[in-house]
Order: sequence, then C-alpha cells, then structure tokens
Amino acid sequence: MTAKFIVIEGLEGSGKSTAMKICADTLARANIDYITTREPGGTPVAEQLRTIVKHAEKESISTQTELLLMYAARSQLLENVIRPALASGQWVLGDRHDLSSQAYQGGGRQISCEVMNFLSQYVLAGTRPDLTVYLDIEPALGLARARGRGELDRIEREDLSFFERTRARYLELAEQDERIVVIGASQAIEKVHQDIEQTLCEFIARR
Amino acid sequence: MTAKFIVIEGLEGSGKSTAMKICADTLARANIDYITTREPGGTPVAEQLRTIVKHAEKESISTQTELLLMYAARSQLLENVIRPALASGQWVLGDRHDLSSQAYQGGGRQISCEVMNFLSQYVLAGTRPDLTVYLDIEPALGLARARGRGELDRIEREDLSFFERTRARYLELAEQDERIVVIGASQAIEKVHQDIEQTLCEFIARR
Ligand SMILES: Nc1ncnc2c1ncn2[C@@H]1O[C@H](COP(=O)(O)OP(=O)(O)OP(=O)(O)O)[C@@H](O)[C@H]1O
Ligand SMILES: Nc1ncnc2c1ncn2[C@@H]1O[C@H](COP(=O)(O)OP(=O)(O)OP(=O)(O)O)[C@@H](O)[C@H]1O
Ligand SMILES: [Mg+2]
Ligand SMILES: [Mg+2]
Repeated sequence: MTAKFIVIEGLEGSGKSTAMKICADTLARANIDYITTREPGGTPVAEQLRTIVKHAEKESISTQTELLLMYAARSQLLENVIRPALASGQWVLGDRHDLSSQAYQGGGRQISCEVMNFLSQYVLAGTRPDLTVYLDIEPALGLARARGRGELDRIEREDLSFFERTRARYLELAEQDERIVVIGASQAIEKVHQDIEQTLCEFIARR
Repeated sequence: MTAKFIVIEGLEGSGKSTAMKICADTLARANIDYITTREPGGTPVAEQLRTIVKHAEKESISTQTELLLMYAARSQLLENVIRPALASGQWVLGDRHDLSSQAYQGGGRQISCEVMNFLSQYVLAGTRPDLTVYLDIEPALGLARARGRGELDRIEREDLSFFERTRARYLELAEQDERIVVIGASQAIEKVHQDIEQTLCEFIARR
C-alpha cells in the first residue's frame, strides 16, 4: 500500500489545527505511520520564510514576493520532507498546502491563473495531495475565532473582501476536484469533528 | 533626461566590487544623482533572503528553492528600491541583477530556459538595465582572487564545471544583447579600470 498525502485547508479560524489533531488520532488508531507538516514552513529554512511572510513589519512585502516566498517554502518542504516521507512509506498530514496559494494568492491577491498554474506545476512536479479536507467558513466567523486566539498576523489583517475572494476560490477549486472534500466549519464543533473523522475513515477504507 | 539602470556582472572575484567604485566615481564626477544596490539583497527582507541562499548550512537548499529565493529578493528590490529611484530621477548602479540568475541558475544549475524566461519576465515586468558591464574571467582565476578575500560561501564552493557553465551562459547572453558590454577582467587592474571608465563615459555621453 502506497503512503498517502492528506491536507487540511481553510481560512483562518476555520479549525485546521483542531482537524489536524482529529486526523492524527484517526491515523494512529488505524496503525498508519505518518508525519505532520505545516505551510508555509515545516523545515528550518521554510520556517524562516514563514516568519518573513507573516511578520515582516519594517518593509512592505509585494504580492509578487509573497507568492515567490510561498513557493520557495513549499519547494523546500516537498524536497526535504514530503517526498522523502512518502517514498519511505510514511503518510503525510499537512496543515495547508498548494490549495492555500491558489486561494489566497490566486483568489485573494488576484494573481493570474497563468502565473499560479506555472508555479504550481513547476514546484509540485506531480506530487499532489490524495485527499484534501477543506473546512468552509464565513470569513468574519473564522477571523473572530482566530482573534480569540491572539494577535492577527500580516495576512490575517487583510480586509474582509480579500477573504471573500479567497473563500470563493477555495469553493471553485473544490468543485473541480473530487479529491477535495468540503466540510461546513461553522457547524457545532462536535458535528465538524464527526464529519472529518468519517471522511478520513472512508478514505482509509478505500485506499 | 531619464534615469538609467546600470549593472555590473561577472563571476566571483571578477572585480565587480572594484568596478562599482569606479562607476560610482564616474557618475559623481558627471554630477549624476545615483544609488547603489547589490543582489541578492538591497532591502532588509532581500538581505535576509541573501543570508539564507548564501549561508544556509543546516539544511540543503534545492536548486528550485534557490531560484525562487533569488527572484523573491529581486522582486522586493525592484518594487521597493529600483523602480522608485528610477521614477524619482536617480540612476541605479547595481552589483549583479537578473543576468546573474540567467547565468548561475540557468547556465550553472541548468534550469530550463522556459522556467528562466517565465520568472524573469514576471518579476522584471519591463524594468531592464540600460547598460550591463560584464567582467569576463576564467573561473579558476576569479575564485583564487575571491579566496584571497576570505571564506567561500555555499555557491562559491561549487565545482569548476559549474562556473564554466555559468561563464559560458554569460558570454552567450552578452552576444545576444547589445546593452551588455564584455570587459576582459583577467587583464591588469589598471587596464580593467580604464576599460570600465571608458565604457561608462561613452554611455553617459550617449544618453
Ligand atoms: N466548529 C467550531 N465551532 C466553534 N469553535 C471552533 C470550531 N472549530 C474550532 N473552533 C475554535 O476556533 C479557534 C480556531 O480554531 P483552529 O486554531 O483549529 O483554527 P485554524 O484553522 O487552525 O486557524 P489558523 O488558520 O489561524 O491556524 C480555536 O479556539 C478552536 O477551538
Ligand atoms: N584586474 C585585477 N587584477 C588583479 N586583482 C584584481 C583585479 N580586479 C580585482 N582584483 C582583486 O581581486 C579581488 C576580488 O575583487 P572584487 O572583490 O572586486 O571581485 P567581486 O567580483 O566583487 O567578487 P565577489 O563576487 O566575491 O563580490 C580583490 O582583492 C581585488 O582587489
Ligand atoms: Mg492552525
Ligand atoms: Mg563583490
């Protein structure tokens, strides 16, 4: 059985970190060997890039620079962590991956599909998630939850229309790809929990 | 008169820093207002990326990541420094720019022309040097000079064939672009000095 690559996606406060725990527990119960990653980040260099992208305060980061840094971080993570893990038979459970760039940089920042597709194909080079769980939420609700958790970072301080465009792109891409499962993240936490667990259990059974 | 963008290029130890001083003096004598930049780097964020690219020791940087970081740094510098300076009438004198990526990442690392052209066009977006002075030198001689100056960094520790490919790409691109002037950098320092000064004086007179 080949190792699988599972990704959790969604806006800030949609419940990705919570979902990661549920998925990790489910994989452990199924006796599946796995690692977890987060993006941007997940390697020492990629974490440095994460800090620049999320917390640069002294200097404005252009849309273009942000995009290139996201893909530089992803390239490091794929090369040094994700591909080696999958090759050795470990499953990979990721908190965000390429779909975040498609939604935030492509949808939110309105970078052209030509540029998004070029970079995505160049960097992913065929490594694609087998299952993506997209936690769908109204931006205002997600941001309110995230705010409860602490200070918002550079990207989280964008205005609501940015997150509306990001969410719309997430939904549009989910519609086109059967490997993306949409779960309503504004539901009660127990229901979300149950939906995630069921989705993952079905995936494990089907694999 | 519009402000001009002048770039000094060449392998390590070819004499770029020395040439920068000569050019700066020549511009000052002609009463031209200018700024200097270096790449990768030249803004706080771009300098952080420079450190990662040149000195990451704990983690191997993939060819792809290196390329994306070079263009992320260039994007920051163009957006926050080079374009604003040119727009305000200041000349820009740069220690390396896009031709370095074409030569090192395209030639040295053998990244495809398709990828190089896509990124270059996306990031430069029409901002191109008006004059590039390429200091041509045998790699072994340049590296010997650079070694005399101190420890070699991550890229400088590549083998000779890497620098041979880089030099060949520099020469190939210089041949195709009349805005690139090739100066023999293994000549005696006084002769190199004279050639650089003459090239720049002619450019200033022609502008
Ligand atoms: N369905 C839910 N109903 C109410 N609160 C929830 C629900 N899911 C998660 N939360 C709470 O919302 C907050 C944000 O959740 P979590 O940190 O998992 O989101 P996240 O998507 O990881 O956010 P970020 O993008 O900032 O990492 C947490 O306090 C969490 O307990
Ligand atoms: N034509 C020359 N003949 C002999 N030595 C030279 C010549 N030009 C420069 N040098 C010496 O070679 C060394 C490297 O020169 P310099 O630092 O200008 O190169 P560089 O291209 O800026 O290198 P780097 O790419 O590492 O920044 C210096 O010690 C410099 O004085
Ligand atoms: Mg989280
Ligand atoms: Mg120098």
